Amino acid sequence: MTLSDVPSPSAAPLTRHAALTLAEQLAQRYAERIAHRLLAPGTRLPSVREGARRHGVSPSTLVEAYDRLQAQGLVEARPQRGFFVRAAAAGPAAPATVPATPRPSTAPVDATALIRSMFASADDAPSPALGTLPPDWLDPGLLQRALRRVTSGSGAGWLRYGDPYGDPSLREALVRRLGDLGITARTDQLITTVGATHALELVSRTLLQPGDAVLVDEPGWAVEYARLSRAGMRLLPVPRGPEGPDLAVMKRLLETHRPRLYLTVSVLHNPTGSSLSAAAAHQVLRLAEQHDLLLLEDDSYAWLAPPHATRLSQLDGLSRTIYVSGFSKVLVPQWRVGFMAAPPALAERLLDSKLLSTLTTPAPMEQALAWCLTQGALRRHVDRVVTRLAAARARTTERVRDAGFRFLSPPAGLFGWVDAGVDTQQLVQPMLDQGWLIAPGALFMPLPQPSTALRVNFAAGQDPRFWRALRQAVEDRKPT
Amino acid sequence: MTLSDVPSPSAAPLTRHAALTLAEQLAQRYAERIAHRLLAPGTRLPSVREGARRHGVSPSTLVEAYDRLQAQGLVEARPQRGFFVRAAAAGPAAPATVPATPRPSTAPVDATALIRSMFASADDAPSPALGTLPPDWLDPGLLQRALRRVTSGSGAGWLRYGDPYGDPSLREALVRRLGDLGITARTDQLITTVGATHALELVSRTLLQPGDAVLVDEPGWAVEYARLSRAGMRLLPVPRGPEGPDLAVMKRLLETHRPRLYLTVSVLHNPTGSSLSAAAAHQVLRLAEQHDLLLLEDDSYAWLAPPHATRLSQLDGLSRTIYVSGFSKVLVPQWRVGFMAAPPALAERLLDSKLLSTLTTPAPMEQALAWCLTQGALRRHVDRVVTRLAAARARTTERVRDAGFRFLSPPAGLFGWVDAGVDTQQLVQPMLDQGWLIAPGALFMPLPQPSTALRVNFAAGQDPRFWRALRQAVEDRKPT
Repeated sequence: MTLSDVPSPSAAPLTRHAALTLAEQLAQRYAERIAHRLLAPGTRLPSVREGARRHGVSPSTLVEAYDRLQAQGLVEARPQRGFFVRAAAAGPAAPATVPATPRPSTAPVDATALIRSMFASADDAPSPALGTLPPDWLDPGLLQRALRRVTSGSGAGWLRYGDPYGDPSLREALVRRLGDLGITARTDQLITTVGATHALELVSRTLLQPGDAVLVDEPGWAVEYARLSRAGMRLLPVPRGPEGPDLAVMKRLLETHRPRLYLTVSVLHNPTGSSLSAAAAHQVLRLAEQHDLLLLEDDSYAWLAPPHATRLSQLDGLSRTIYVSGFSKVLVPQWRVGFMAAPPALAERLLDSKLLSTLTTPAPMEQALAWCLTQGALRRHVDRVVTRLAAARARTTERVRDAGFRFLSPPAGLFGWVDAGVDTQQLVQPMLDQGWLIAPGALFMPLPQPSTALRVNFAAGQDPRFWRALRQAVEDRKPT
Repeated sequence: MTLSDVPSPSAAPLTRHAALTLAEQLAQRYAERIAHRLLAPGTRLPSVREGARRHGVSPSTLVEAYDRLQAQGLVEARPQRGFFVRAAAAGPAAPATVPATPRPSTAPVDATALIRSMFASADDAPSPALGTLPPDWLDPGLLQRALRRVTSGSGAGWLRYGDPYGDPSLREALVRRLGDLGITARTDQLITTVGATHALELVSRTLLQPGDAVLVDEPGWAVEYARLSRAGMRLLPVPRGPEGPDLAVMKRLLETHRPRLYLTVSVLHNPTGSSLSAAAAHQVLRLAEQHDLLLLEDDSYAWLAPPHATRLSQLDGLSRTIYVSGFSKVLVPQWRVGFMAAPPALAERLLDSKLLSTLTTPAPMEQALAWCLTQGALRRHVDRVVTRLAAARARTTERVRDAGFRFLSPPAGLFGWVDAGVDTQQLVQPMLDQGWLIAPGALFMPLPQPSTALRVNFAAGQDPRFWRALRQAVEDRKPT
């Protein structure tokens, strides 16, 4: 059972008038979460008393649900300790050749599982955990026109493997776009990728060796941590403040660990929404020069940012900075078009890595995006989105404060970084019980540690029911 | 200077009536090859006497051309030894943070450079080194209709990140396609990728560790060798015969080195065109079972193969075999749609790797391909291509034999494996002088070693001028 044939974690409350008994409904709900790995192998299910309270059923109903899960081989009873998700519950046993993926046995949520669930929401109900704009904020008409324009020609241009660097028309449009941001790049410094994620991966694979130390923002984005960790890198967290990284910590880490790379989101940082100040950018570049550090600047939120935002790549002139961005956050999540602009000396090596990874990238998507860029249609769409986001941010900010929560960083961009006052990982299951997926702060920590924060998507965080449910879950957690 | 702003290696002969002098033309031609890395750093240019003979110019003209290259910083003179391509000739000096890519200093051709050139041919002239069908064999009308169909709906389906496994309609169509090949798979064993190359990469990254031994076909495809080598794997070559791998060698390597994986093309193997016999498939699977070996079956040429071809995945039932294929070889090189079918126990881990690599894959491409598959349009296109390829193969085979060359493997599928009788790497530069890019046998060897073979694309190998030029280049090489 996997994401593809299991509905997303059910948002519906249990009902006494359904075809299934309450115990059957409960068992089904837990089975879904186990299949999604929202309950990781080794996780302890709530005690009978706690579970009965949480779901509003009798203890005997809960015991019957757990018995059903046990009969299905999904959980096991451990004497005196309760019920635990079985290690092999997510699928058939692996052959002997396959090393088991190491997983923290008590982690309540598996990071990649939670991220996958964020992508796979079964309905269009906006979840505050969403990592992109809600689908109804996008402009399907624009995308249709662009793709039709590309396919209406003779077709000759999109029948071959294409330029390994990426479609020339897109790269020329991107050179102009970077120019608007004050970043000077030539087309042969630009390499297109399958979304910004792919660019970040190609850079780390090409320039890092297992064991290398890498500076990362704390908090930051779990996918990046997961990729770097799997590749054997040592993560060195640098606390992220409202103006940028903590420079004193950064300096100490540079002196002690000699990291090769600093991966950072300068503008509208995920999850805090903060942007690097020009002064901090200058100091980061000075440190980088002194310690021979490469900078990998993820500018995924570029389109949502004010025009004057400062980038490292701009000050540095792409000499020791690699600039990465894409279009998923404003236009077309599943078109997967991203790109990087690299120092000239690195571009060919990164290109070789792209060749070994995917040969080339899908040209029709790139040509359609080039059309959107050159026609000004993307700019007009962006202007509409930015205006709408500002209004949504104001409303969501009000909800956050009405519910008695506070922001850990001033609201800006797509994401709010909200303090819930209790360890938010402990809120994941109770909130799922109410039909809400949340993005707990621990997901944004490079090293395992609890966090009282959660990330909220301003565009999808306006439902007061969500905030009431969160307040209730927090109250339930607090010692009485 | 890179592929994007330099024309492909010039195919035109030098001319005495051009705006440029002969020396300028020659210098330009060498500069292009250096930019393309068809002349790798450290390579020695031909001696003045040999170069003058080869290009039909006077020694003083050649000296003037070399002087120009030296003035441009592209080559350097070493006393008593001649002219060599400079290490930094391909671009500005790298910053100190960037380790130089190790390159064999005397390699006449850099493998990834040659492969890149294969993709980037500036005109539509079919080159016998081509790795795909020539563009005029494809059906742009079909692809236009498919993409228009996808974009003509409400658009809602292609506005989100999509299912991490890949578009559901494509995966369902692929389950039926695999069924036709006798391979039983469920949709949750199928993961779409950015072309077959991406699937092969995800598998090796997920299941192998640096230092692991991997069995590979010899000869085989350079991109796979390059990727595995860069990731730190030890390549163990298994000679490929007309029926499949050399089982005695395979057994010995299994006993001695305990490799984890065997990467192989069972059907219409690249470059020999041979296909695995059912008996050999059975023996390979027996050995795999005895030695707990995973099998990675690259079926990129599936659509060109006869219906009865035997796959390991079919016999094995995807229990220790991962099946990989795509559409680049028959339909749409630069759409980059590939997929893998994995044992159930491995599918989720491979999915996590995909998520960390590219998040998801471009859905419009996948939905368009699903439409091609379900409408039967792909099948009709394939039937036409296979018929046309059979005729082209017959003609190219005649040319090969007329030119006095022989096949090292019976002609089949897209590629011929031809014996030139001399080290074909020595023919690359003389053939470039005549405007022909060739794919020398050394490119298909897992470990550096000379080869007298070259790979010829049957669909693009019918020009008698190519075979005359090759014959001449061979004669020039032979001791007088």
